Amino acid sequence: MNSKKLKIGLFGFGTVGKGLYDVLKRIGADNVEICRICVRDLKKPRDVEANFTDKADDIFSDPEVNFIVELIDDAEAAYTIVKRALMKRLPVVSGNKKMLAYHIEELIDLQQQYNTALLYDASACGSIPVIRNLEEYYDNDLLTSVKGILNGSSNFILSKIFNEKMSYPAALKLAQDLGFAESNPSLDIDGWDSLFKLIIITIHAFGLYVAPEKIFTYGISNMNDDDIRFATEKERRFKLVAHVEKLSDNRLIMSVMPQLISRNKYIYSVEDEFNGVVIKGLFYDKQFMFGRGAGGYPTGSAVLSDITACLYNYKYEYKKRNDSQLPTYTTDHSFRVYYRYTTAEDLALLKFDNISENYISDNYKYVVGNISLTELHKVQEQLRERNVFIAAYPRD
Amino acid sequence: MNSKKLKIGLFGFGTVGKGLYDVLKRIGADNVEICRICVRDLKKPRDVEANFTDKADDIFSDPEVNFIVELIDDAEAAYTIVKRALMKRLPVVSGNKKMLAYHIEELIDLQQQYNTALLYDASACGSIPVIRNLEEYYDNDLLTSVKGILNGSSNFILSKIFNEKMSYPAALKLAQDLGFAESNPSLDIDGWDSLFKLIIITIHAFGLYVAPEKIFTYGISNMNDDDIRFATEKERRFKLVAHVEKLSDNRLIMSVMPQLISRNKYIYSVEDEFNGVVIKGLFYDKQFMFGRGAGGYPTGSAVLSDITACLYNYKYEYKKRNDSQLPTYTTDHSFRVYYRYTTAEDLALLKFDNISENYISDNYKYVVGNISLTELHKVQEQLRERNVFIAAYPRD
Repeated sequence: MNSKKLKIGLFGFGTVGKGLYDVLKRIGADNVEICRICVRDLKKPRDVEANFTDKADDIFSDPEVNFIVELIDDAEAAYTIVKRALMKRLPVVSGNKKMLAYHIEELIDLQQQYNTALLYDASACGSIPVIRNLEEYYDNDLLTSVKGILNGSSNFILSKIFNEKMSYPAALKLAQDLGFAESNPSLDIDGWDSLFKLIIITIHAFGLYVAPEKIFTYGISNMNDDDIRFATEKERRFKLVAHVEKLSDNRLIMSVMPQLISRNKYIYSVEDEFNGVVIKGLFYDKQFMFGRGAGGYPTGSAVLSDITACLYNYKYEYKKRNDSQLPTYTTDHSFRVYYRYTTAEDLALLKFDNISENYISDNYKYVVGNISLTELHKVQEQLRERNVFIAAYPRD
Repeated sequence: MNSKKLKIGLFGFGTVGKGLYDVLKRIGADNVEICRICVRDLKKPRDVEANFTDKADDIFSDPEVNFIVELIDDAEAAYTIVKRALMKRLPVVSGNKKMLAYHIEELIDLQQQYNTALLYDASACGSIPVIRNLEEYYDNDLLTSVKGILNGSSNFILSKIFNEKMSYPAALKLAQDLGFAESNPSLDIDGWDSLFKLIIITIHAFGLYVAPEKIFTYGISNMNDDDIRFATEKERRFKLVAHVEKLSDNRLIMSVMPQLISRNKYIYSVEDEFNGVVIKGLFYDKQFMFGRGAGGYPTGSAVLSDITACLYNYKYEYKKRNDSQLPTYTTDHSFRVYYRYTTAEDLALLKFDNISENYISDNYKYVVGNISLTELHKVQEQLRERNVFIAAYPRD
């Protein structure tokens, strides 16, 4: 396959698209070339000389183009592009987590129907090859859980807050200025980006697709100084953790939420825009993978790895999807949380199994107690809208 | 390929062979079965019921066996088995680093000639899929270096010494009792095991084969209390580090030696029998992979990953071997070292470029200075035999 030359039609020229362009230019790959680039706004000044267009048709009707790379923000537009590419039997690399999280099942079918590869390792954890590893290496039944910091931008913000005592808005602004944050910061901060990645990871890790709306998802935007002080006093830090775990009886739980992480955990030391993933298995215990999870160059080089894999006709096999006994998704699982609230109504919102700590002062009230994912999921919206904050608080 | 059933002829039933057996039993894989096990000593009591033999022919002439797994200590016997398997077009998984480090080039040729897979991810770093990642994900020209702790047993010993103030012999004994150490401890402690793994990694990372005798290799067995105190005073720890790096001009350096690692490095925190590998690239900066590097179950499950990969007809592609411009191996590279010596003769042994620190007391003498790998390699044997100790001492 080494003699094949990829002529890429590229959609999107934001941080990652430009990153890919720069990486390709820097390494001077002679078997990979960007032929045409489709952007939303042709008039936007760009300091590169390339064949720009604002019409998808220009790319799809170009007989030279034999490969599509889709790196745009808009999930629905990305879906249209990827679908069209597969149906034209053009291998395609996508970086759009949201699109994948909603359409992955259909896109798996299309890949099989048209015998054409869709790769998206770059979509989950930037430069860490999580998907590829789950697909190729953890493809037997030993895997029990995948847990990690999957969003570089929110982790960057948490690092600045915990290490440099930076204010939340200042940290967010800095993340955006450095190109780590999505154009819509809620995607990062409220856990959606992590959720989308978790859904993609779960398909490869356990074979099961679970729709975004079924999974409890809660971010860091409600965190205040009292919460930070609580964490610091316990010698812990808040990290935004995405988690999928196979329980006994082949039941699968999933969640995205802040977690109070103690020092002896691997992900405690994942700082700034880095991502870290802990893969646990029956016999190999823990594996930890760590790397840059955001930014144009790291993600651009991850996209390049997907592209070169296509040069070798690599395809995801979705091996776990063929398991005779796919796990069953459940929210029936209780665990300990820290819950800071304001009013009695806030407290009544949550049905705890039991409450083990109860703190009340004029300006700061919290409980520590056990609650199920089912209960949390029911009031997910209200937890976001009210002046409250909740985080997992494992016993370890 | 899912309907294929692997009937394994297994050579060796030591820590890893037994680990594989237990892992397979535990997961109850119905498409992988161990048919026959060849061991050196049939009379040794074993608490498993299996089809044991002490004759390789019994396995190779068994028409049922369609897959060979080689997990024996003896490198030359392993070589014979692997070669015979490939020539009979039986896919084979090997865990023998030493054998691979000496015979890999011929075995690559045989794989191509007989179109049969030889996999050995389990041979380097136990449960961390380093080879598979280098092969599949870091297969473009962005990679600049791979560096890490590749030997679980020597790292276990160093951890016990630095964290628990254990004596060297006690720590070694404990490592052996726990099944982490090779039957010949010199393999672990003097750096040979790391060297063999480094050679295998380099083939996949940079396409170049470099013979063991060309690479400076030095272990931890000469380390004494003065050295440990020196490290502690500098807030560093000794780690046994294997290192391959592409310099400018496409020159490649390699070494295995102790290194004074400061706290802010990823591998500082790799404790006990764990391995940790840092992969650096032009654009993605650093990636860190971490996991159990020794022990029957972790390595057994790594062997299982190789086996299931074969179920899907996976083969290493050795992509970097096809590069038009393979790097050139060199030892012409200087760096800072710490050198503890006893006599004036010891000091004269090494030709330093310059010496920046010089400490002399009655019982403890050392210098810090720059020296080239060429000079170190020349006197490798003497450095092992004399009452001296040398370690890389990066400026960071």
